[in-house]
Amino acid sequence: MTATPPERTGRHNLDPHLARYAARTAGMTASEIRALFAVASRPEVVSLAGGMPNLAALPLDSLSAQVAEIIADDGLVALQYGSAQGIPVLREQICEIMALEGISAHPDDVVVTVGSQMGLDMVTRLFCDPGDVVLAEGPSYVGALGSFAAYQAQVVHVALDDDGLMPDALREALAQAEKAGKRVKFLYTIPNFHNPAGVTLAVERRAEILEICRSHGVLVVEDNPYGLLGFDGQTYPALRSIDPENVVYLGSFSKTFASGLRVGWVLAPHAVREKLVLAAESATLCPPSLNQMIVSRYLSTHDWKGQIKTFRENYRERRDAILSALEQYLPPGCTWTRPEGGFYVWVTVPEGVDTKAMLPRAVTARVAYASGTGFYADGFGSRQMRLSYCYPTPERIREGVRRLAAVLESEMDLVRTFGNVSMKPIPGPESPSPDTA
Amino acid sequence: MTATPPERTGRHNLDPHLARYAARTAGMTASEIRALFAVASRPEVVSLAGGMPNLAALPLDSLSAQVAEIIADDGLVALQYGSAQGIPVLREQICEIMALEGISAHPDDVVVTVGSQMGLDMVTRLFCDPGDVVLAEGPSYVGALGSFAAYQAQVVHVALDDDGLMPDALREALAQAEKAGKRVKFLYTIPNFHNPAGVTLAVERRAEILEICRSHGVLVVEDNPYGLLGFDGQTYPALRSIDPENVVYLGSFSKTFASGLRVGWVLAPHAVREKLVLAAESATLCPPSLNQMIVSRYLSTHDWKGQIKTFRENYRERRDAILSALEQYLPPGCTWTRPEGGFYVWVTVPEGVDTKAMLPRAVTARVAYASGTGFYADGFGSRQMRLSYCYPTPERIREGVRRLAAVLESEMDLVRTFGNVSMKPIPGPESPSPDTA
Repeated sequence: MTATPPERTGRHNLDPHLARYAARTAGMTASEIRALFAVASRPEVVSLAGGMPNLAALPLDSLSAQVAEIIADDGLVALQYGSAQGIPVLREQICEIMALEGISAHPDDVVVTVGSQMGLDMVTRLFCDPGDVVLAEGPSYVGALGSFAAYQAQVVHVALDDDGLMPDALREALAQAEKAGKRVKFLYTIPNFHNPAGVTLAVERRAEILEICRSHGVLVVEDNPYGLLGFDGQTYPALRSIDPENVVYLGSFSKTFASGLRVGWVLAPHAVREKLVLAAESATLCPPSLNQMIVSRYLSTHDWKGQIKTFRENYRERRDAILSALEQYLPPGCTWTRPEGGFYVWVTVPEGVDTKAMLPRAVTARVAYASGTGFYADGFGSRQMRLSYCYPTPERIREGVRRLAAVLESEMDLVRTFGNVSMKPIPGPESPSPDTA
Repeated sequence: MTATPPERTGRHNLDPHLARYAARTAGMTASEIRALFAVASRPEVVSLAGGMPNLAALPLDSLSAQVAEIIADDGLVALQYGSAQGIPVLREQICEIMALEGISAHPDDVVVTVGSQMGLDMVTRLFCDPGDVVLAEGPSYVGALGSFAAYQAQVVHVALDDDGLMPDALREALAQAEKAGKRVKFLYTIPNFHNPAGVTLAVERRAEILEICRSHGVLVVEDNPYGLLGFDGQTYPALRSIDPENVVYLGSFSKTFASGLRVGWVLAPHAVREKLVLAAESATLCPPSLNQMIVSRYLSTHDWKGQIKTFRENYRERRDAILSALEQYLPPGCTWTRPEGGFYVWVTVPEGVDTKAMLPRAVTARVAYASGTGFYADGFGSRQMRLSYCYPTPERIREGVRRLAAVLESEMDLVRTFGNVSMKPIPGPESPSPDTA
């Protein structure tokens, strides 16, 4: 070992620790949205960028009283270390929730995590060596891409359409990976009310996709934070319910209860679950006891299904607002998905418009969105954007879309007059950030 | 990519996913203590194994009222996603706490983590490629060894004595690593009231150790969960206070307030801090908002220094109990450290006795401890054990040591009669588990 002198050239030349980082760290760069975040979060800007759930309907007074009780009556447990796997009563309740989507599971196979993001990180830790391939929808969740990058996995995107992941595209991706001699570790998929695409995997495709993965020896990682947020109360059979032995399932209370508690879970085949607990121990020792007890108490005393219904109705009202505003305001040549649940609409703009380059102009016009490139690991997505309708009021959403339409119109005018004048940013993977989560 | 058939031989032959794991996962095995944990946690067993802080002195009623207020008044923030770096007011308060040990820091350079364990994991993620060397005291914290193993870093232990890490041993370890062409990434050290050794790095060694690391281009990771738990109220200058640019500092509220909230922090040089936030985002998106607000409110309204004084007095009483019991009961040939703060005594037993092999017999005799091998990555430690005096009452501690002494006596009788008859377990690294944390 010799002391390597710090590198003095390049954009990081102020970091004397540059030569010491691990190889994985070189790929960690902040989302370009982050730079705009301070501006985009000003009250006069309508943010359609963030994925923050709308918690206004939560019964804060009764929650407050219950949490007070937990600490007064059971504080020495709530404030103490717990098991790395999570408290047993919560794991039982999680099994009851998963039963709503057809899953039959044992609490022993559930691991409570610090949000579903930690589940993603742990699953990637268990399975991915550098260079291993992860298949993921194109586009895919930006936080998942961040975890995959952290373990130096290579993401290969698989196309989706209005019925979700396309089986033929999956076959093709697997064939190409086999041909290239790559090790495909798992398919990462969000079957219901996809983030960011807003589409849902058709029921008739589910068994087919599972069969394709099984026949190629590829595990399926099913991420399902929005499954109970179907606007008509509809649910779909979880992939895990169809092939329990080849699916690792990720769940979360962030969208059905409270994101700030950071309580999610992983349901895994038993042998994988054992490894998961060990991985989780080395990551955080154990999830916060208090937070688990709050969720558990809430589930056992509140009408949590009624609460989810209220959330769903709030989100449906906002979905209706955004779809009608898009219809009314967006210039011809734009297309978008029509979500039946969840938080997001995925918009494609006419050729020549670059959503990443346009974003500063949109923020100047007091509307923010997430540009499409953040949802791809391969630089694709410059003609796409994600609009989140979960947080603003319907009136603000309409106003935001009106502003966005005006920005798009003037961008398209420029393109018509001068060709594509957007300053092309360099494509590349971005890190997740709470504003695009 | 071809479907690899599941391996059908070996001890893991029930796991059909075995061929799919990453290389790092192969090294994940549970602590042998875990198997005993169900038995060791029975009420009739005196556990000197765990590192659970004694929270009985916490003011639960006023905490309960304050947490209720946070949720009632500010619930939409407390239950919502926050920033990945942590809430600003808490980061300011953390700087005030660190000032007690001579640290001058800016809140911008603090990252709040899900316990200090997550800080350790993130720092290792940033710096360690597989095969990189981490220097650590021998023995060292079991949870740190777990994180280093998760990133396939190679741990080289550096000897300590009653004055902590030995500068000459550090020089020697660096020289050997250089000779072997290894990349040493950092020195991981617990300078104050060491876990598990119970010793404190002498003040006059601190600058010397920092200078050695700096001259070899090696970063220092200073882990300081116990620094404010010196039994006479004494504190020591943090390594970070002496060399701000070459030290990453890890702090925690687990031992000074409430472990179950999982709130810790990392203070890092500014450029490293930027990377840390990105790494933390891909690991958990953000730390729980509620938990940070609870800690912040507690710090701003409670007499937290008075509370730490109460904790210190509780622990001192227990330290006194264990030292006098060890003196009274332990057979000749045993030696132990004399901690002036923190939770742990490190005991060395006579040659021929194997603490790992003896553990089941101790548990049968209704006393549990952590055998020494868990605190080494290299199989050393079979003549050592860690005794935690933090949790049981002084009376139980005395009774536990009495039982332990009887087990040791009979073990030594066997050794005297037949030589070493202990069933030698295979040495190797163990994963952390809450019982040995």
